[in-house]
Amino acid sequence: MAIRYPNGKKYVPATEKKASSKKQVKKDLTFSNRGKTLEDMIDEANAYYLTVKEAVIHKKPVPIQIVNVEYPSRSAAVIREAYFRTPSTTDYNGVYKGHYIDFDAKETKNKTSFPLKNVHLHQVTHMRAATAQGGICFLLIRFSILNRSFVLPFSILNAAWAEMEKGGRKSIPFDVFEQDAIEIKESYSPQLDYLKAVTVLLPL
Amino acid sequence: MAIRYPNGKKYVPATEKKASSKKQVKKDLTFSNRGKTLEDMIDEANAYYLTVKEAVIHKKPVPIQIVNVEYPSRSAAVIREAYFRTPSTTDYNGVYKGHYIDFDAKETKNKTSFPLKNVHLHQVTHMRAATAQGGICFLLIRFSILNRSFVLPFSILNAAWAEMEKGGRKSIPFDVFEQDAIEIKESYSPQLDYLKAVTVLLPL
Repeated sequence: MAIRYPNGKKYVPATEKKASSKKQVKKDLTFSNRGKTLEDMIDEANAYYLTVKEAVIHKKPVPIQIVNVEYPSRSAAVIREAYFRTPSTTDYNGVYKGHYIDFDAKETKNKTSFPLKNVHLHQVTHMRAATAQGGICFLLIRFSILNRSFVLPFSILNAAWAEMEKGGRKSIPFDVFEQDAIEIKESYSPQLDYLKAVTVLLPL
Repeated sequence: MAIRYPNGKKYVPATEKKASSKKQVKKDLTFSNRGKTLEDMIDEANAYYLTVKEAVIHKKPVPIQIVNVEYPSRSAAVIREAYFRTPSTTDYNGVYKGHYIDFDAKETKNKTSFPLKNVHLHQVTHMRAATAQGGICFLLIRFSILNRSFVLPFSILNAAWAEMEKGGRKSIPFDVFEQDAIEIKESYSPQLDYLKAVTVLLPL
């Protein structure tokens, strides 16, 4: 059984992460993936932006409810009982060129549309509120089989979500991405230079 | 032995929090404290700002390194081994009137100055980077015995930190707060309406 965070993401223990990345490398030796997960690519981009002073964007830690902690003498405290909590925001936020940036990252194996079941109500609610305050909100969506990544402005997601709530379609067609989203061109360093695409969303 | 997070804060297990708040109520029945911790007051203010659509500001979860998770059938996953990690940012951020807001909260029992040992280098480094991107950064400092709270602009902290690194004084005198910080007037709902003080820091 795959273990998932409350936000639906698969849980991978830190000790297994390296091993599983290696496995992926064997399967996929194309230029643009190299076994990196979408999260790895975003981490790499954020570290790059911080170093070159282009932006300060961090992934938020997973919220945990701690119940019991042990304190072995002379060593670090060990959490012995804790539970995953449902987050109330998106995973990433920060500041770029004076703007508040807020987004979540999603990966899909679908080739013709992005299923909205990948998005959670609390994420939509949060991005609505942050947009109303003048924040720049979006989804960073990777179509893994197509090897293409997009910045989808929150306005498009919001409209699709409202449609779905009225009984409309439960996914965003790939056509919409080609027309209304901003494609992230893969480069070398960082591989996923997503802020170049986000620049299009900034007010003039 | 008091248990502390890597950022120096005392660790209080969630199950003990209620009990310890009750204890504090007994000790302190003045109008403005009522046994609430500074964190409680900020949580209350942030919930209020979200409800009245004035700002979207959240506390970041404590970063944890998860090593082992158990999955009892039919119940939630239980984290059985995890460790506290050192955060790389401040505790609070969000968006207010189109501005990126970033701060940490500090409480001191000192009455004549704020000791800089309450601040950590990674917090200063982070606020330097966020300020350079146009973010509004500050410390929310509560002098608990004096029952007075201030928004200290990052520029003042940054100058004092640089002085200390050159061998200068290791604290910020209370005079500096009265002159250069913005006092938070306590009110009813929310009790600690800190954004009113932050407004002074926003660019015109």
